[in-house]
Amino acid sequence: MAEEGASAPIFDSVALIGLGLIGSSIARGIRAYGAARRIIAFDSSQEVRARVSALGIADDVVEALAAAARADLVILCVPVGVCGEVARALGPHLSPGAVLSDVGSVKAAVIAQVAPHLPPGVQFIPAHPIAGTEYSGPDAGFATLFQNRWCILTPQPQVDAAAAAKLTAFWTRLGANVETMSAAHHDLVLAVTSHLPHLIAYNIVGTAADLEEVTQSEVIKFSASGFRDFTRIAASDPTMWRDIFLNNKEAVLEMLGRFDEDLTALRRMIRCGDGDGLFALFTRTRAIRRSIVAQGQDTAAPDFGRAAAKNDPPAGR
Amino acid sequence: MAEEGASAPIFDSVALIGLGLIGSSIARGIRAYGAARRIIAFDSSQEVRARVSALGIADDVVEALAAAARADLVILCVPVGVCGEVARALGPHLSPGAVLSDVGSVKAAVIAQVAPHLPPGVQFIPAHPIAGTEYSGPDAGFATLFQNRWCILTPQPQVDAAAAAKLTAFWTRLGANVETMSAAHHDLVLAVTSHLPHLIAYNIVGTAADLEEVTQSEVIKFSASGFRDFTRIAASDPTMWRDIFLNNKEAVLEMLGRFDEDLTALRRMIRCGDGDGLFALFTRTRAIRRSIVAQGQDTAAPDFGRAAAKNDPPAGR
Ligand SMILES: NC(=O)c1ccc[n+]([C@@H]2O[C@H](COP(=O)([O-])OP(=O)(O)OC[C@H]3O[C@@H](n4cnc5c(N)ncnc54)[C@H](OP(=O)(O)O)[C@@H]3O)[C@@H](O)[C@H]2O)c1
Ligand SMILES: NC(=O)c1ccc[n+]([C@@H]2O[C@H](COP(=O)([O-])OP(=O)(O)OC[C@H]3O[C@@H](n4cnc5c(N)ncnc54)[C@H](OP(=O)(O)O)[C@@H]3O)[C@@H](O)[C@H]2O)c1
Repeated sequence: MAEEGASAPIFDSVALIGLGLIGSSIARGIRAYGAARRIIAFDSSQEVRARVSALGIADDVVEALAAAARADLVILCVPVGVCGEVARALGPHLSPGAVLSDVGSVKAAVIAQVAPHLPPGVQFIPAHPIAGTEYSGPDAGFATLFQNRWCILTPQPQVDAAAAAKLTAFWTRLGANVETMSAAHHDLVLAVTSHLPHLIAYNIVGTAADLEEVTQSEVIKFSASGFRDFTRIAASDPTMWRDIFLNNKEAVLEMLGRFDEDLTALRRMIRCGDGDGLFALFTRTRAIRRSIVAQGQDTAAPDFGRAAAKNDPPAGR
Repeated sequence: MAEEGASAPIFDSVALIGLGLIGSSIARGIRAYGAARRIIAFDSSQEVRARVSALGIADDVVEALAAAARADLVILCVPVGVCGEVARALGPHLSPGAVLSDVGSVKAAVIAQVAPHLPPGVQFIPAHPIAGTEYSGPDAGFATLFQNRWCILTPQPQVDAAAAAKLTAFWTRLGANVETMSAAHHDLVLAVTSHLPHLIAYNIVGTAADLEEVTQSEVIKFSASGFRDFTRIAASDPTMWRDIFLNNKEAVLEMLGRFDEDLTALRRMIRCGDGDGLFALFTRTRAIRRSIVAQGQDTAAPDFGRAAAKNDPPAGR
């Protein structure tokens, strides 16, 4: 990536609002790949601001939201549920021509909450980098988080093509592959690839915690046989996920309905002892896995047998 | 583990029936940790037998099941659904005092199918090492698969304490922590920690594959946001999993019933916009994750952000 780090910055200044996992990863990525000349950081938490200063990942850590509005690109990296309130406070300070973006995991609801607060001329281009971990906070971020991951843009119709091209170049510089689609389609795609899996994972971990016949300590002990992979997902940030489900309600409920229908059919196969039906389904699902590995969206290394690594570096909380 | 490798072998000869992932891992583990003097291998597949010979992981690759019956310890490492038929063919050749075990993921059904074929005096001690990967076959195995994993024994009541102690020592030598419980309890514990998670994973991957509004290529592209972890589990061997669901039907359906009730409650929270209820559940599920990491049953390394590793070593099919 050395040749990329040496290219010209894409924006003069970038302001990041919210320096958690995603915001701090963007900050680190901007530095590592020279995507902007200056990084301005604002977070509502005094503790986070102090930590960002100590980490030295921004040029300017500002005490007021308004002070971040002067940047050429402002990115909201806060939970989906507060994007509207941040936009209301930020809106009046934005100058026409500035690019406003976000990283929220839901798009239609964020647009509905943010757009009304923007002065004319502000280029609002919502975005969603499909990358993350189950950790939060400014210490959890890293510059390579977006490498070989997708970043979806859902530009408002009235946006300048030049502004969209600049934001595309920005995410490309951070290592992402950029794709554009409508907000509604984004919310449907993510409902199935991300929101439904998280919902199911939270649910199964909750079910296992409530059993009486099997103790919690047994569930933990014998978790390597499948369950632990769900607990990883179900350890994701509660605030972020509450906001996602509340703000992508329709698409999530729609996908959950499909899942439920299929589960009813699967249950019937088990009850009736339909071995051929089970075998056919289990063979079909394998093909999708192969495509994911082939497209570099996961590694082929065996996982269920992964070594217990008590000495792994701590990664956030 | 050098000092362990240097201890005396626990069995003189061990026969492995079925040299797939688990059988071949046991073979490699016996060698690596000196758990037996001789390894005899039988597999119904000519191709597997040839591969085992080429890999050199057994002392004797035999062409007939009967030739494997002379060992002090015989372990069935075949799919659950064929354990009964293998036992019928093997039973008459076993000598009193020999220890017979298996590694099946289901215990009550295996016992019901195997026990009737055993001559008196054979020490039948069913076992289930809680370790594996989503790969199959003799190339997928490795000696350290059982390290720091649990192995559950469900000994028949009439079994000699000395035989059970020897099998415990054997699995301990391979790196496992041994636990004893009833077959019925095993099947319930595994229904929640392993069978239900796999069922749910197979189901969600099936659901995603059948959508019309979201293309399969979109599902694959954007899978890093949660979905891919399910596809890993849903890539497990179809034969093995068909047999598990057919042979642990009651416990699986019981756990599925609980899961379904909880999902109905969760769906209602989303529909009603009950943010506090969602937040409370998502906070509770985090605690279980922490215990799993603390007990060394998983690593704390962030996963959703794991690097795409196109150059990972191929691991089985
Ligand atoms: N994590 C992922 O996997 C992932 C992936 C893709 C997209 N996203 C999206 O990225 C966004 C941020 O997620 P994250 O994982 O980076 O969360 P995070 O680590 O919890 O960081 C969010 C940060 O925003 C701060 N904040 C909250 N309210 C604020 C406000 N009104 N003004 C300024 N700062 C505020 C928080 O401060 P406090 O600590 O005081 O709350 C925190 O420092 C979310 O919209 C999420 O949907 C997340
Ligand atoms: N994989 C896991 O994660 C895991 C974990 C714990 C326990 N287990 C249990 O371990 C057992 C084996 O699983 P595995 O993953 O090792 O499966 P595998 O890799 O598919 O190996 C099974 C082997 O048994 C052979 N076989 C099939 N029928 C046979 C017969 N009648 N006589 C002799 N050999 C026969 C198969 O040959 P073919 O190739 O010709 O079919 C194959 O080589 C199963 O009972 C499973 O429930 C698996």
